[in-house]
Amino acid sequence: MTTEIIQALEKIVGTAHVLTSKDDTHEYGQDWSKLFTPDALAIVRPGTIDEVQLIVKYANEHKIALVPSGGRTGLSGGACATNGELVLSLDRLNKISKVNKVDQTVVCEAGVITEQLQNTAEDNGLYYPVDFASTGSSQIGGNIATNAGGIKVIRWGMTRDWILGLKVVTANGDLLNLNQGLIKNATGYDLRHLFIGSEGTLGIIVEATIKLTRPPKDLTVMVLGLSELSDVYPVMETFQQQLNLTAFEFFSDKALNKVLSHHDLPKPFDSPAEYYVLIEFENESEQTSETAFSAFEQVLENGHVVDGVISQSETQAQQLWALRERISESISHEIPYKNDISVTPSNVASFLESINTIVKEKYPEFEIIWFGHIGDGNLHLNILKPACLELDEFVAKCKSVNPNIFETIQQLGGSISAEHGVGLVKRDYLEYSRSHEEVLLMKQIKQVFDPNNIMNPGKLIAL
Amino acid sequence: MTTEIIQALEKIVGTAHVLTSKDDTHEYGQDWSKLFTPDALAIVRPGTIDEVQLIVKYANEHKIALVPSGGRTGLSGGACATNGELVLSLDRLNKISKVNKVDQTVVCEAGVITEQLQNTAEDNGLYYPVDFASTGSSQIGGNIATNAGGIKVIRWGMTRDWILGLKVVTANGDLLNLNQGLIKNATGYDLRHLFIGSEGTLGIIVEATIKLTRPPKDLTVMVLGLSELSDVYPVMETFQQQLNLTAFEFFSDKALNKVLSHHDLPKPFDSPAEYYVLIEFENESEQTSETAFSAFEQVLENGHVVDGVISQSETQAQQLWALRERISESISHEIPYKNDISVTPSNVASFLESINTIVKEKYPEFEIIWFGHIGDGNLHLNILKPACLELDEFVAKCKSVNPNIFETIQQLGGSISAEHGVGLVKRDYLEYSRSHEEVLLMKQIKQVFDPNNIMNPGKLIAL
Repeated sequence: MTTEIIQALEKIVGTAHVLTSKDDTHEYGQDWSKLFTPDALAIVRPGTIDEVQLIVKYANEHKIALVPSGGRTGLSGGACATNGELVLSLDRLNKISKVNKVDQTVVCEAGVITEQLQNTAEDNGLYYPVDFASTGSSQIGGNIATNAGGIKVIRWGMTRDWILGLKVVTANGDLLNLNQGLIKNATGYDLRHLFIGSEGTLGIIVEATIKLTRPPKDLTVMVLGLSELSDVYPVMETFQQQLNLTAFEFFSDKALNKVLSHHDLPKPFDSPAEYYVLIEFENESEQTSETAFSAFEQVLENGHVVDGVISQSETQAQQLWALRERISESISHEIPYKNDISVTPSNVASFLESINTIVKEKYPEFEIIWFGHIGDGNLHLNILKPACLELDEFVAKCKSVNPNIFETIQQLGGSISAEHGVGLVKRDYLEYSRSHEEVLLMKQIKQVFDPNNIMNPGKLIAL
Repeated sequence: MTTEIIQALEKIVGTAHVLTSKDDTHEYGQDWSKLFTPDALAIVRPGTIDEVQLIVKYANEHKIALVPSGGRTGLSGGACATNGELVLSLDRLNKISKVNKVDQTVVCEAGVITEQLQNTAEDNGLYYPVDFASTGSSQIGGNIATNAGGIKVIRWGMTRDWILGLKVVTANGDLLNLNQGLIKNATGYDLRHLFIGSEGTLGIIVEATIKLTRPPKDLTVMVLGLSELSDVYPVMETFQQQLNLTAFEFFSDKALNKVLSHHDLPKPFDSPAEYYVLIEFENESEQTSETAFSAFEQVLENGHVVDGVISQSETQAQQLWALRERISESISHEIPYKNDISVTPSNVASFLESINTIVKEKYPEFEIIWFGHIGDGNLHLNILKPACLELDEFVAKCKSVNPNIFETIQQLGGSISAEHGVGLVKRDYLEYSRSHEEVLLMKQIKQVFDPNNIMNPGKLIAL
């Protein structure tokens, strides 16, 4: 049977584009979560949308499970093939159109790397503002499938907010051309938004029309040191009320030390601090600088902040950002169990306090790395695997604490997955953030789009 | 049977809140389109979400068709009861919460009037930017059900972009609490976005958490006169490239004269002009004013503009806006057949030209009123009913021209309903903007949410 499948796929894409080696199935079978054992049937790499349609039609007829595969930078196992699935890689669908300067849009195939989109925008005097640590590897299709967020959400929103058109191949091989780049279109259910964030379970995103915007001027970065977790919220409030922030990030001293031990970067300042916030804003005028300084003085006087630094150049701004952005990468070899959780900004204070209590009580023996996009209510709580502990044992221990964390989030009306998606990691916890009725509706919608359950089966919802 | 239904409803909401008089069924049975003969069974006016759930459960059990009813300012017949339906009015669900200043959000029940929301935001130093002619009557629930757009879309987007949470009663009476006001929430299909723009066919929107923003400073308005339709596009390009516009509106001299004959407003300037554009921007600094003046000089020198005026005060800005905003109201007694159509901004030039050709050829005997939100590609083409012509005959004639207009739009990848929705008016034309496959998927989704087809049946999609 496997041989037949391989031959059929080779007929569609050519022999060079069906991969079956152990190295390949291992590589393409997993994402950055590293929590699952890859077990892919093969990898097929179509070069055109037509080929995607042919592959999907074939898979649907033969009930072959498909895993759509982008940059595999996901952290929830959504792009893992752990059950003999066929991996459909979008790598070769990587064409990017000329920028339409009147519409301020660009058309990207699913396999375009995020950074390539950012650079294309910049080359045309424009800006694609969705930004996160993995932009050098993540692909547009995957960003859309998970509605990627990142570090600029408080100012520019999520991936969803930048998608004006979407081409999707559904489970029967049909190609949908949704919204066609229109700003205004009130012609019924907006299926585009159903596919955004659906994690490959409803169809395969093959192309998107993406909105761009004017680039920000003189982005200026401050890093402030805090002694207590309870200082984060008043600092956030002070700065948000006075400035139009483009980012408000948070990280712990432990997180900073992980970065400093892996990268040759200067410490932000000498004073010891338990926690840090990184604040970014557009330095539009002298008045903006003055406002920022006065806000800094205010939090310093109130005792919420122990020290701080403000970037004097673009290079320094980038170095300060690196302290925050390289955390994930610096801890990745320690196989962190990631809690990517959120509440509304006004609930951040009680959220941090509650989570801290749980962590202290339940994880006394583990190293905990805190960071997050706290300006939009999103916290990343990373529990590091001790070298001595087996992966299974470590995951089991983390899982045993999940209900405590998730119940707290449920009580605060928050999300158990702010931006990483559900994938395999959060699937069995979905009802902490979505009601039983919602999950039932999601299952029925899945059934409408994918009656044979070939589209990333087992991810997001258990059928 | 009717008596039984009335009694059951009276048990739920009290006798005072079930209306059955001819005046009431007439009033509540129609919207502003005035193209359909109202025929409502009765009107039920629940005062709480619980009551909405009980009514819907009862209707679902007895297979009674429901028409959710807000301000009935719609222009597509989406809120008309023309077939003995029970009208479920959200009028009494009109509570608005305190503004949450940290989150910059407010919780509105569905029956809150748009203007009330705008005023509440203003009282709190904030801004709700979705604005259109009917804000004094339209309700938030209806705005969401149709994803209302209006005059500020190029800067602030559609209603969709401001909805952080949504409570919806589905056909079986379940209450869904979607997204709970969160900025980041990656936990599966975003059903919130499926309900936005679904025109009451999937469930009844009962409450929303709405995002607010900082108010704009010194909104300044220019009105420019143009001799030719072909001048609209170069003027738009010139201003959009140099300024961050908050509005770019278009109207014809005929439209202006309708307003001036109904309202005591000054003409923008004395020079005769066939067409006008209204441009609005935030006058952030002296430099902005200079840029605006130099753009004006440029289009004047190039011969695209014959004259212009710039507002010198807020009152004058409002008077200039009135010239554009009062068009709909000034022509409403002439029962306009409305084409609410859009393309991408870069297609506006060929779009205007093609539509003009069709109109000249197909409607030589009718009075045509052009206006629209041309900055986002949205044109309102109004054909006025001659007094001598019967409504049926007039509508039949307009319908006979629809295919010509819609085929042109289809070729340009545009939308046959930019912001009014599909309702009854556009239902049979849906496939000009949505593929057959998309419409099939929409029908199946409708089936998932509303298996007995009691939710606004016959609107949006023909089952």
